[in-house]
Amino acid sequence: MFGLFHKSSDRPLSEKGLLGVLEYSQKSSRCIGQLADDNRVSANNLMTYGSVLGDDLTDVTSRLGHLLIQWSNILMEFQDSVDQYRDTLKSITVKEASLQPGRDQKRKLRDQIERLQNSLSSMDKVNNLKEQLAQLEEFTAPDEAEMSNFKRIATREGLYLLLNGMHAMSSKSDIISTFGKYIVDELDVDPVKAGEERRPYTGAEKTKRIQEDAQRAIEQWNPDKAKVRRTLTAH
Amino acid sequence: MFGLFHKSSDRPLSEKGLLGVLEYSQKSSRCIGQLADDNRVSANNLMTYGSVLGDDLTDVTSRLGHLLIQWSNILMEFQDSVDQYRDTLKSITVKEASLQPGRDQKRKLRDQIERLQNSLSSMDKVNNLKEQLAQLEEFTAPDEAEMSNFKRIATREGLYLLLNGMHAMSSKSDIISTFGKYIVDELDVDPVKAGEERRPYTGAEKTKRIQEDAQRAIEQWNPDKAKVRRTLTAH
Repeated sequence: MFGLFHKSSDRPLSEKGLLGVLEYSQKSSRCIGQLADDNRVSANNLMTYGSVLGDDLTDVTSRLGHLLIQWSNILMEFQDSVDQYRDTLKSITVKEASLQPGRDQKRKLRDQIERLQNSLSSMDKVNNLKEQLAQLEEFTAPDEAEMSNFKRIATREGLYLLLNGMHAMSSKSDIISTFGKYIVDELDVDPVKAGEERRPYTGAEKTKRIQEDAQRAIEQWNPDKAKVRRTLTAH
Repeated sequence: MFGLFHKSSDRPLSEKGLLGVLEYSQKSSRCIGQLADDNRVSANNLMTYGSVLGDDLTDVTSRLGHLLIQWSNILMEFQDSVDQYRDTLKSITVKEASLQPGRDQKRKLRDQIERLQNSLSSMDKVNNLKEQLAQLEEFTAPDEAEMSNFKRIATREGLYLLLNGMHAMSSKSDIISTFGKYIVDELDVDPVKAGEERRPYTGAEKTKRIQEDAQRAIEQWNPDKAKVRRTLTAH
């Protein structure tokens, strides 16, 4: 009998874990959305800060600010991937719920059999219940098997969605960081003494091109084929 | 006179922007920390979910869970970079504060001169104030010039810190996503009919090696030399 009880207490542990994933991946998703928002406001403030501080600071903070705002869009795409991951795992709980009535009935029968066997009651009664249980188990077996199959498929699908999203987010973020540095390189940091004029800023054409190239690199980005996994629900 | 007033109203705009960057980059930093926490809890729940669902799900969720927990560490390092970025920009406001008394005095003198000139008062009084202003401007000019130099250096430094951090975060996150997919690939998703046994899981050795390789790749990761910028305050 231990086997049966062991099994029925395993399920709640697994369910608890799954509900935890759903809860905390939703929290993660919200964090990423919040980060996208805060970063956007911060980038706008960076542009305001530099807007009146001379040609070089004005240009560099403006170009980089626009790139950092792009980063917020990248984060929002990633938030979307986390949501898809979550939705996919949630489909497991939805499917599990449809199996619950049958499972409850089986547990009830097992409890009854256990009780009657301990109380040394009539074998007839016990055998009758055992037969009911066997029938119910046979009847629900295909659905339980399908559930077990589905769990693997949905888990794999969900994790691929998460990891594909992470791949896109990291590749695009790295584009921001690389091109961003090229822009910052244009800042003139040579010290100028009081009364001297800072030499005229000549980087504007270059930073414009860098920003456009970065934009294009992000738009045209495609996942590394060796790394991406085809998913069923990804759009 | 317009030039002077223009300048004095420019400064608050720039300061407002800088304070905005400080406020919202702090919020970003907190979001990243929160994301690291939520992701860690989610990863632990993923392991709990899979822990009782058969050899393949148990192994894959456990190995991937550990990788995702690594991702939280990567996020915490990134949080550190955002904090360094913020601290570096904050040093500008600290330095600005030390110039404030002199600036207030100059503004007061300019206001007085403006008022007296409009009221057609004695030229002597006006000329005296103008001389005071000129002396004060000469006296504070070196500090103001140094402030202007410092602003460029600190801004560049801060932005490099942020972008270097973003480079590290994205490269390491991509390691997680790449190796993570190799682990998920080991999940057996072939459907099994009711009554049939799932074929024995054979991926455990492989996923162990993948997790160790990922760990090593993250630990031994070094920034792309063409992309990184040397900073003064980075450790």
